[in-house]
Amino acid sequence: MPHVPERLLLGPGPSPVEPRVMRAMATPSLSHLDPAMMSMLDAIRERLGRILRVGEGAFTFAVSGTGTSGMEAAVASLAQPGSRAVVAVTGYFGDRLADMLTRYGAHVARLDVEWGRACDPAQLDTFLRALPNPPDIVAMVHAETSTGVLNPVTDLCRLASGAGAMTIVDCVTSLGAHPIDVSAWGADAVYSCTQKGLGAPSGLAPISFSKRALERVENTSPPNTSRSFYFDLNLLKGYWLDRKYHHTISAPLVYALDEALEVVLAEGLDARFERHRTNHLALVNALAPLGIEPLPPPAERLWSLNAVKIPDGVDDAATRKQLLDRFGIEIGAGLGPLAGKIWRIGLMGYGSSKDNVDTLTAALGSLLSPQIGQRRAYQ
Amino acid sequence: MPHVPERLLLGPGPSPVEPRVMRAMATPSLSHLDPAMMSMLDAIRERLGRILRVGEGAFTFAVSGTGTSGMEAAVASLAQPGSRAVVAVTGYFGDRLADMLTRYGAHVARLDVEWGRACDPAQLDTFLRALPNPPDIVAMVHAETSTGVLNPVTDLCRLASGAGAMTIVDCVTSLGAHPIDVSAWGADAVYSCTQKGLGAPSGLAPISFSKRALERVENTSPPNTSRSFYFDLNLLKGYWLDRKYHHTISAPLVYALDEALEVVLAEGLDARFERHRTNHLALVNALAPLGIEPLPPPAERLWSLNAVKIPDGVDDAATRKQLLDRFGIEIGAGLGPLAGKIWRIGLMGYGSSKDNVDTLTAALGSLLSPQIGQRRAYQ
Repeated sequence: MPHVPERLLLGPGPSPVEPRVMRAMATPSLSHLDPAMMSMLDAIRERLGRILRVGEGAFTFAVSGTGTSGMEAAVASLAQPGSRAVVAVTGYFGDRLADMLTRYGAHVARLDVEWGRACDPAQLDTFLRALPNPPDIVAMVHAETSTGVLNPVTDLCRLASGAGAMTIVDCVTSLGAHPIDVSAWGADAVYSCTQKGLGAPSGLAPISFSKRALERVENTSPPNTSRSFYFDLNLLKGYWLDRKYHHTISAPLVYALDEALEVVLAEGLDARFERHRTNHLALVNALAPLGIEPLPPPAERLWSLNAVKIPDGVDDAATRKQLLDRFGIEIGAGLGPLAGKIWRIGLMGYGSSKDNVDTLTAALGSLLSPQIGQRRAYQ
Repeated sequence: MPHVPERLLLGPGPSPVEPRVMRAMATPSLSHLDPAMMSMLDAIRERLGRILRVGEGAFTFAVSGTGTSGMEAAVASLAQPGSRAVVAVTGYFGDRLADMLTRYGAHVARLDVEWGRACDPAQLDTFLRALPNPPDIVAMVHAETSTGVLNPVTDLCRLASGAGAMTIVDCVTSLGAHPIDVSAWGADAVYSCTQKGLGAPSGLAPISFSKRALERVENTSPPNTSRSFYFDLNLLKGYWLDRKYHHTISAPLVYALDEALEVVLAEGLDARFERHRTNHLALVNALAPLGIEPLPPPAERLWSLNAVKIPDGVDDAATRKQLLDRFGIEIGAGLGPLAGKIWRIGLMGYGSSKDNVDTLTAALGSLLSPQIGQRRAYQ
């Protein structure tokens, strides 16, 4: 039996698994083609569609892989060799989108935004107008996990659609924590993960394609030319809608997602978002006396993932190690240009609670006060 | 909480989950970069390597997806646009390999073998000699899940290596049930799944690359040109070996695989293979009085998956539905040209037991005797 330490998961994900979701995984296994499994997949499609607020004719399901597999399924479905793609890069995951689009043969124009700031719609507007040819695809990240920034995707999608492009929106760190309205955005491919705002373990990637995106994929000539078999949207539709074997979906992960969606809807979307907002604000307030400030300006902050600046004189790695070893608390390090400069504190799904805010603040306070005191003494 | 019927999973997979593996999944979650998680991944690499008998310098791990994701990771790593690939197609999964290789840009030459028979090494030898240019890749399936056939991969790999090709061997239905000796075969990429011979749920794909394959991938110029990001071998190595974030591996699936490998090694490989062989023979003997014969000739039969001919006059779909509805037993239908002609009965992993042979035989007997009797009466 695996022997593992118990952790309070307050990093950028995975978040703590809902106890109800943990119990759901112990449900006896069903095969991927069992009628009872297919009914559960139908229910998941319907619930996910409601939570994402997808438009009519959308196809909403889950890819059998992590959030990154959702990203690749979106890119594999919409990008083709020669596609022109614009990516609003506001952090690590925008950069990853640009990488994937390039791998799938697209010519990528990057709109690079300072890490820690949202993409201003006026920036995108200017960028799009300056392009010699209109893009086929505009890709963006709703909640940038690497910087704790919420992008104004309603406006960004409107501009992209206005330029005639399909839109890809990464909702990995917003689903279940921030309002998502795929239909109002007019987004064409939206994907997420299960291990953040939904409170389930990782391993499935909720995803939705608009009617327009589906028509484009169906009418690709010659048909079935996806460069990937695993991420081939037509084959995935064949499985989820027509019960045609494509791969063996993981029963415990399906049970976990099914239960997590039930928990989300039972709490109510508005109540859930408000809980995330309240606990985010509580954390910001609690960390201020320790000299810890958020990286993004107030209007651009995520509720699910708090990117906070490491105070001067505090040892990044040593503090995170002590949090883990002495308190069993995991928080995240900075990525890329923010490595050593920020911590990433997740309050997501089941993990977004006042208790967790208090526990983390107490632990951090006990570790930082001596360090900050010592620094002052030597100045 | 999910409400699902209880099933005895005797189809082509998933197989019944080991009770110990089911309990292991309830272990508290760890993040993908937790030191305790990385130790567990190290242990999985070592154990998988022993069970697959990999050679020195091999890289053995698990892709975060189903067996099909393992197939795509192997293909994505070894095939490039313009590669010349030979596929020994002895059934549905050989056909899938050919499809994937084509998608990744390879020119594919298919050696099609009658479904229900193994690929004769002499056939491959003749085929390779007749090619205008030697292949870069030869791909084959060890245990063909669609036909119940075991291919002589030792000989097939020897011929392929002799022709200067890298070899890809699909071990989805053999791992944990049939002897595998990657080192002796000289195979370059071997992949499998967790939900058959290992007795875990699906969702991870054990995979191993030879030293030679790794060198080829590392020396690809320009580097990192994998068309897939999710299946990029260099990035996957970065995560498994150097703890660099690539994706969020699913903790419960890791716990399940870890526990399943421990169970396999505790039973002992030879004892486990012998159990699969014995129960396969017991099933063949038990079905004979019902007029049910295996499809492949005796020397080519899998122990894990029994492809058996549906007797004349027996209604395929109705019988499977009655097995499921009245007895809660799942068996598999035939695929492709074998649809309606065979059943596929899995005795894999925890599911390979004398009890299951007896239970299925009794249930099938009670359903078939009246049908066969009726048919005889009308003749």
